[in-house]
Amino acid sequence: MNFKPLHDRVVVEPLDQEEKTSGGIIIPDTAKEKPMQGKVTAVGTGSRGEDGKVVPLDVKEGDTVLYGKWSGTEVKLGGKTLLIMRESDIMGILQ
Amino acid sequence: MNFKPLHDRVVVEPLDQEEKTSGGIIIPDTAKEKPMQGKVTAVGTGSRGEDGKVVPLDVKEGDTVLYGKWSGTEVKLGGKTLLIMRESDIMGILQ
Amino acid sequence: MNFKPLHDRVVVEPLDQEEKTSGGIIIPDTAKEKPMQGKVTAVGTGSRGEDGKVVPLDVKEGDTVLYGKWSGTEVKLGGKTLLIMRESDIMGILQ
Amino acid sequence: MNFKPLHDRVVVEPLDQEEKTSGGIIIPDTAKEKPMQGKVTAVGTGSRGEDGKVVPLDVKEGDTVLYGKWSGTEVKLGGKTLLIMRESDIMGILQ
Amino acid sequence: MNFKPLHDRVVVEPLDQEEKTSGGIIIPDTAKEKPMQGKVTAVGTGSRGEDGKVVPLDVKEGDTVLYGKWSGTEVKLGGKTLLIMRESDIMGILQ
Amino acid sequence: MNFKPLHDRVVVEPLDQEEKTSGGIIIPDTAKEKPMQGKVTAVGTGSRGEDGKVVPLDVKEGDTVLYGKWSGTEVKLGGKTLLIMRESDIMGILQ
Amino acid sequence: MNFKPLHDRVVVEPLDQEEKTSGGIIIPDTAKEKPMQGKVTAVGTGSRGEDGKVVPLDVKEGDTVLYGKWSGTEVKLGGKTLLIMRESDIMGILQ
Repeated sequence: MNFKPLHDRVVVEPLDQEEKTSGGIIIPDTAKEKPMQGKVTAVGTGSRGEDGKVVPLDVKEGDTVLYGKWSGTEVKLGGKTLLIMRESDIMGILQ
Repeated sequence: MNFKPLHDRVVVEPLDQEEKTSGGIIIPDTAKEKPMQGKVTAVGTGSRGEDGKVVPLDVKEGDTVLYGKWSGTEVKLGGKTLLIMRESDIMGILQ
Repeated sequence: MNFKPLHDRVVVEPLDQEEKTSGGIIIPDTAKEKPMQGKVTAVGTGSRGEDGKVVPLDVKEGDTVLYGKWSGTEVKLGGKTLLIMRESDIMGILQ
Repeated sequence: MNFKPLHDRVVVEPLDQEEKTSGGIIIPDTAKEKPMQGKVTAVGTGSRGEDGKVVPLDVKEGDTVLYGKWSGTEVKLGGKTLLIMRESDIMGILQ
Repeated sequence: MNFKPLHDRVVVEPLDQEEKTSGGIIIPDTAKEKPMQGKVTAVGTGSRGEDGKVVPLDVKEGDTVLYGKWSGTEVKLGGKTLLIMRESDIMGILQ
Repeated sequence: MNFKPLHDRVVVEPLDQEEKTSGGIIIPDTAKEKPMQGKVTAVGTGSRGEDGKVVPLDVKEGDTVLYGKWSGTEVKLGGKTLLIMRESDIMGILQ
Repeated sequence: MNFKPLHDRVVVEPLDQEEKTSGGIIIPDTAKEKPMQGKVTAVGTGSRGEDGKVVPLDVKEGDTVLYGKWSGTEVKLGGKTLLIMRESDIMGILQ
């Protein structure tokens, strides 16, 4: 079973803490919002402007991304816990 | 008796819990907003931009969709309890 | 005496409870906002965009519509109690 | 002395209660906002869009209108108590 | 020393109470916001839309205007107490 | 060391009280927000509209301006205490 | 490992206090928001308007910038503590 996000929504599979620290990213322990790391597993067709034109998203399937800790809606799909969020909740791509 | 939603509104028939777990989606029990699963039974003609142009919706009759738990307005129509919501309340389509 | 609503406003005559249940719509008794049923008796010329272009409304005189319970402003006109609301308060048309 | 409202503003002379009930409009005594009846005595040149184009108003001098009870700013001009309000505060025209 | 307001700002010299009542305008003593009377002494070049186009103002130097009692910022310039406000704070022009 | 403000930001050097009163501007002591006087020392390239077009600012280096008392962010640069604010915080230019 | 910020986001490496005071900028100790100094290490492709057109950013890699003290999200990347913020959080460029 496949899930196709609508519009500017993106499905992200959170990476666990061990993978993160081994990957070189260590989240410091401060009061500030901490970004989390995850892998994009599905993207919508793009955001729609007022004139109906669709603007494709900048992230694509397979990208490793940073996103805000409280972003998105949790859902279990095919046994995995995933997050459905908007592309604007994603801060950038790790390359 | 038929119901035609206006503009970007969509009518969704919620699927019951049993069907959901057998379909592979299990909603984890966390404090986060949990998406619900339903079947689209009617869609509006589309959202209207400021210039009056109508942009057709991306969901269509028969789609199985995920939507936020508190989305929409409940109404009984032809003996069924349905939800009238905006397309933006729908997170994506299960294929 | 006739009343012509301005812009995107619509005049709706609420249908009483008996007619509603016999017509097949039963409003379940939950905490959610319950839609009401009514008949459109007058419509404005349409909403005006920023560029001054008028977009005609999708509802028309005689339509039976569902609208939110707390929508509109009550007024007595020609002995009838009517509601003046915006088209965006109307969820859809019963056909 | 004459008063010319700016942009989308309109000057309305409220009609007194007696005239209203004899004219067929009776305002029911509920908790909802009650519309009031008045006569338009002056209108602005129109609302201006972002591009500077002026869109003329739909109400004109002499129209009998319904407006929200708490709309507008009271001013005495030539011995009469008038209301200066925006056209969007006017619900419709009695014909 | 001269003062040139920016964009859609206008400089207004408030007229004192005596002049106002002799001029035919009497502000009734109610709880509503009372408009004040003043003379425009300087106007900006106009409001700028998103596309950078300047839309000239509708009021001009010398106009006698009504404005909301709490509008604008007080400043003493050349010995006079003046108000700097936006054109949208002005309700209309007395002719 | 030079500072170039971004977009529609402006750097203003506040003028001290003595210079202000000798210049003819006296700020009355009321509860209203009091405008302050300063000299523009640097301006950004302009505000950018949604379409990416840059609209140059109306104030320029050397202008003496009035601005709201609580506008801007204080910074010490080259020994001077300066304010970085947006052009929209500036009320007008003294000529 | 490299990080590519999305859209109008910018990665800034905060400069420590000593470098700042030797560089000529001294932040006065007031209640106002104090700007901080940092070096831009990565920039997004630009902000996207409603029509999908990308507007490149005005800051570039290597720029020394001032930004608000509470701007951005802290992240450790390659052993360095960096800030991910939007370009609009940046006040200007030190040259």
